[in-house]
Amino acid sequence: MSDEKSFHMTPDEFRRHGHAVVDWIADYHSRIESFPVLSQVKPGEIRASLPANPPTQGEPFDTLLKDVEKLILPGITHWQSPNFFAYFPSNASGPGILGDLLSSGLDVQGMLWSTSPACTELETHVLDWLVPMLGLPEKFLSSSTGGGVIQDTASSAVLCALLAARERATNYTSNQKGCNGRIVAYVSTQTHSSLQKAAMIAGIGADNVRAIDVDEKFAMRPEALARQIEADKLAGLLPCFVCATVGTTSSNAIDPIPEIARVARQHNLWLHVDAAMSGTAALCPEFRHLQNGVELADSYNFNPHKWMFTNFDCSCFWIADRKALIQTLSILPEYLRNQATESGAVIDYRDWHIQLGRRFRSLKLWFVIRYYGVEGLQHHIRRHVQLAQIFAHWVRDDEDFELAAPVPLNLVCFRHRAGDAANQTIMDRLNRSGDLFLTHTKLNGKLTLRLCVGQTNTEARHVEKAWNRIREEAEKLAASA
Amino acid sequence: MSDEKSFHMTPDEFRRHGHAVVDWIADYHSRIESFPVLSQVKPGEIRASLPANPPTQGEPFDTLLKDVEKLILPGITHWQSPNFFAYFPSNASGPGILGDLLSSGLDVQGMLWSTSPACTELETHVLDWLVPMLGLPEKFLSSSTGGGVIQDTASSAVLCALLAARERATNYTSNQKGCNGRIVAYVSTQTHSSLQKAAMIAGIGADNVRAIDVDEKFAMRPEALARQIEADKLAGLLPCFVCATVGTTSSNAIDPIPEIARVARQHNLWLHVDAAMSGTAALCPEFRHLQNGVELADSYNFNPHKWMFTNFDCSCFWIADRKALIQTLSILPEYLRNQATESGAVIDYRDWHIQLGRRFRSLKLWFVIRYYGVEGLQHHIRRHVQLAQIFAHWVRDDEDFELAAPVPLNLVCFRHRAGDAANQTIMDRLNRSGDLFLTHTKLNGKLTLRLCVGQTNTEARHVEKAWNRIREEAEKLAASA
Repeated sequence: MSDEKSFHMTPDEFRRHGHAVVDWIADYHSRIESFPVLSQVKPGEIRASLPANPPTQGEPFDTLLKDVEKLILPGITHWQSPNFFAYFPSNASGPGILGDLLSSGLDVQGMLWSTSPACTELETHVLDWLVPMLGLPEKFLSSSTGGGVIQDTASSAVLCALLAARERATNYTSNQKGCNGRIVAYVSTQTHSSLQKAAMIAGIGADNVRAIDVDEKFAMRPEALARQIEADKLAGLLPCFVCATVGTTSSNAIDPIPEIARVARQHNLWLHVDAAMSGTAALCPEFRHLQNGVELADSYNFNPHKWMFTNFDCSCFWIADRKALIQTLSILPEYLRNQATESGAVIDYRDWHIQLGRRFRSLKLWFVIRYYGVEGLQHHIRRHVQLAQIFAHWVRDDEDFELAAPVPLNLVCFRHRAGDAANQTIMDRLNRSGDLFLTHTKLNGKLTLRLCVGQTNTEARHVEKAWNRIREEAEKLAASA
Repeated sequence: MSDEKSFHMTPDEFRRHGHAVVDWIADYHSRIESFPVLSQVKPGEIRASLPANPPTQGEPFDTLLKDVEKLILPGITHWQSPNFFAYFPSNASGPGILGDLLSSGLDVQGMLWSTSPACTELETHVLDWLVPMLGLPEKFLSSSTGGGVIQDTASSAVLCALLAARERATNYTSNQKGCNGRIVAYVSTQTHSSLQKAAMIAGIGADNVRAIDVDEKFAMRPEALARQIEADKLAGLLPCFVCATVGTTSSNAIDPIPEIARVARQHNLWLHVDAAMSGTAALCPEFRHLQNGVELADSYNFNPHKWMFTNFDCSCFWIADRKALIQTLSILPEYLRNQATESGAVIDYRDWHIQLGRRFRSLKLWFVIRYYGVEGLQHHIRRHVQLAQIFAHWVRDDEDFELAAPVPLNLVCFRHRAGDAANQTIMDRLNRSGDLFLTHTKLNGKLTLRLCVGQTNTEARHVEKAWNRIREEAEKLAASA
């Protein structure tokens, strides 16, 4: 056969273009404060700038990079800006990005141990590291009955927990005979919407998700949970799962895990603890009291891709009884059979989540933990919490504003006393200005502003500027009233 | 507040370390043929080389990169080696890797249009590009009733298709009342295991998945499908979904879509077409006959992360009626409300898949399509198919070997005539030698070797070497018999 024509990028071209992309990212992070945080484009504006048809012939790489600058950047909402205070953070870091780049370069599939042993073993190892780092119970260690796995998102993690709970409650029948329409899952009114979505996906149905009432701190009322379970049992239903949250999305509320766990045990419910953002705080021993009772959980998840300097996606999920998960999700067709799997000596992570294929995600997490060290991570988490507490102090001391919820960590829920319309106007004007980006929620029916401190490079000056800008918009509003 | 202490990597440090990582990847790809393709480590070997505890203090970046070389590489099965012929390919490329690096650097969340408009609009645009590129029906265009979305894997894509089908069959009740245990899904005996897993996840249950018999080419028998549906209806069940495959994992069999579609329409079943690997072949008009009937599908997926030079993860999923999908998966909590969503003028992709969070995955796909151009992609796909056909020809002409299935594209299923033990020995010795990596399946109860040509840099010389090595092991076996 003859010499091969090739359209591929050669290693030397990759070297050259790769340096250019690295430099572009370094420059992007250096000038990130010059962009409006929230993209200012209108619907359809980005698409209108793109050619209607794909190119027949290849284009030079330089053109692609120029187009990212020219066509894509205007449509970016800058999650990596230190002036990003919206939602929950997505805080990337150099070691995380470069660990992920290595994962792309290796591009292995980790579905089975044998398809790349390092991909499985490093993941198990790093998730075992995190158990004592976060003060989690030993039963989550792979050397115990449990183990950890990296999922893409908390949505997928809670779906897996719910599925394992469903199967345990129905005695692993893998069908729904005898339990159809009878399975019930419990959350609070403040639990993340992913739980409701998971129940819909799992065929439990949104109607069979009970949203339990919360107290004045927006934490689940365990006595209300117990009452609802008893009512459901009397109605012939099959309560099977409850989710407690450490740091709800809306207001960072902390559910009382020990009391919820007591109810769960009494009624044989699976207890999942969702600490998607706030779990990172447990790196600091002084914040671990917020997750008191986590040793009673059947499963637990937190997302390093939110607050632990690890770019998306990376959601860590632990389970106390790994057999329950594997029994729920395992399928072994002939073309995946191999000696290592048959020996039982290895973990095959494809049985630990929804997907079959999986990326080498532990590389970036390993890089982040090693580059920062436990002390480096603790330093920055403490600093974020401190900055949020200072902000909360300013709100508390201001006669025009009020705090809308307790501030256990890095999220401040607050509002102008002039009511919903005023808060909406302040938020819209701030976001349109591009100076910062914050989002809202509703607490006790009132529109509430949320300021979440967690972006990698957010420092005192950014939080100070945010408060000054908020005050400024409030004063403008007062002047025009 | 005082100056800030920082453990972060500065942009200048990122530049320096980033160049080193890019160079490492370029070197890795240059010397990749020097590694054994299948990792030779034993279970536990990689973990044993890692420190038991995480570091308290941060470590220099250079140490991390050295450890990838020293501790991780031995545990890598080299999916990017041109001597990788196992499973389905995972074929990365320079433009794909660098597009993904930009995605990591921007690290935006694309859950809503407003959280980064470019992330949503580029994705819609590129998936619209692919519709004519692949000869897919116009109903899949976002300008029509349908639209495309990038999922992580085909497993998640088929789960979404099945969920939309389940909801349509039960009239979007979002619960299972009235249909519990009655929903039935249809696949063939050769359909990918992800369908069975999806049915378990969706609460349909493995017992309610019917594996329809196949013909001598391992393609689903439409008449057997029709008979099974009728029997299930007579038994009071609710047939709702059928999956046809273009290129099964086991043997690359092509299900007869037009006949399956006819049965599906008659009984009001949702028709999903799974073309995870082989869908890429449709870039070349001469291979499109393999997907005849795709215009009758309700949904369709293929994975650029398999055979289209795009690193994992990137699975493209189209649906003819996007409302069916959105109605199934939509949840809108207060903290995600925003003007763009309320206006109805935008796509919010979080309603198109299981997860809430989502990465800017279209960047890498855009880069691949633009860097290669349609002609460049076609060139390499044609060449892979040609190499597989030449290999099949050698097998056909060899008296010791036989083909075990038709070879429509780039996967050759073959076996030594001496039986299962001989084939197992040949495969084990080849894989242990590190010279190449291939895997097996069972067809008609017989162990069958699979050689899949699809790695980015696989050329004639690699396929020639593979055949020579296979012959060599066969001769050794004959000599020792």
